[in-house]
Amino acid sequence: MTMATVAIRSAEARDASLILELIHGLAEYERLADAVVATEASVRESLFGPHPAAEVLLAEVDGTPAGFALYFHNYSTFLAQHGLYLEDLFVRPEFRGHGIGTRLLARLAAIAVERRCGRFEWAVLDWNSDAIRFYQALGAEPMSEWTTFRITGEALTALARRSPG
Amino acid sequence: MTMATVAIRSAEARDASLILELIHGLAEYERLADAVVATEASVRESLFGPHPAAEVLLAEVDGTPAGFALYFHNYSTFLAQHGLYLEDLFVRPEFRGHGIGTRLLARLAAIAVERRCGRFEWAVLDWNSDAIRFYQALGAEPMSEWTTFRITGEALTALARRSPG
Repeated sequence: MTMATVAIRSAEARDASLILELIHGLAEYERLADAVVATEASVRESLFGPHPAAEVLLAEVDGTPAGFALYFHNYSTFLAQHGLYLEDLFVRPEFRGHGIGTRLLARLAAIAVERRCGRFEWAVLDWNSDAIRFYQALGAEPMSEWTTFRITGEALTALARRSPG
Repeated sequence: MTMATVAIRSAEARDASLILELIHGLAEYERLADAVVATEASVRESLFGPHPAAEVLLAEVDGTPAGFALYFHNYSTFLAQHGLYLEDLFVRPEFRGHGIGTRLLARLAAIAVERRCGRFEWAVLDWNSDAIRFYQALGAEPMSEWTTFRITGEALTALARRSPG
């Protein structure tokens, strides 16, 4: 038995269908398959079009796609500095236990340091205690006193209509 | 007594010192004045330099600066679409009660709709029950099952060093 080789690389436009496949894998894992409205075209346009809204790292094991991380820059007002925000990280079930998630997180931390980001942040589901223990062991701290609010759909357009100009 | 006129406008580079003043106002209100390391130069560079990391709306009452909102785009993997994220909103204490916060939120919602963002999101401190009631009345929903983790400083550089490449 030989050691598997894990490689991390930045995704390119030709990876759009692979990224969509991994997004579906993530959604199935989270039992949210119905929530995916992304298509290969919208993945390509939003990530590799004229105004990329996020970046993607791909993890490959001996050349086979094993996982991905999707990230973008956020901003800290008090620091007047951008930060790095990890929106999603997913490793295919059959490739778990090889430290691929850690490799992706470490590469993201390296990108954050290289780009002079003051912070690297991501959100985790409260019931995912294994992940929480792992993140805390890395030195990450929970921003437990904050809750994110989201407005979408009809409530969003109703609020928009209250703007006079 | 005449009605005060509230106007909302996009901030420009010449507003950097005003934005810094409002950031300090916000920090004092949150009793986090020591957390502000932003300077006029870093505000100008990060918001109005060659790679703006966020955008700012300013609220003025009869021409006097009364508040601000700082926002940027985030991304939804399942939607393959950018969203609008409000990082900070602040109205000077002496200008509260005139609906300025609502005007800022409504303008942000209008920007989100105009830019075809699927979502408009922001975080709130759990103890701020007045704000939470207000946001829920607007139709915003709490993402209560998620907690944000943050890694910074020495822990961030230590994690970055685990990346082999």
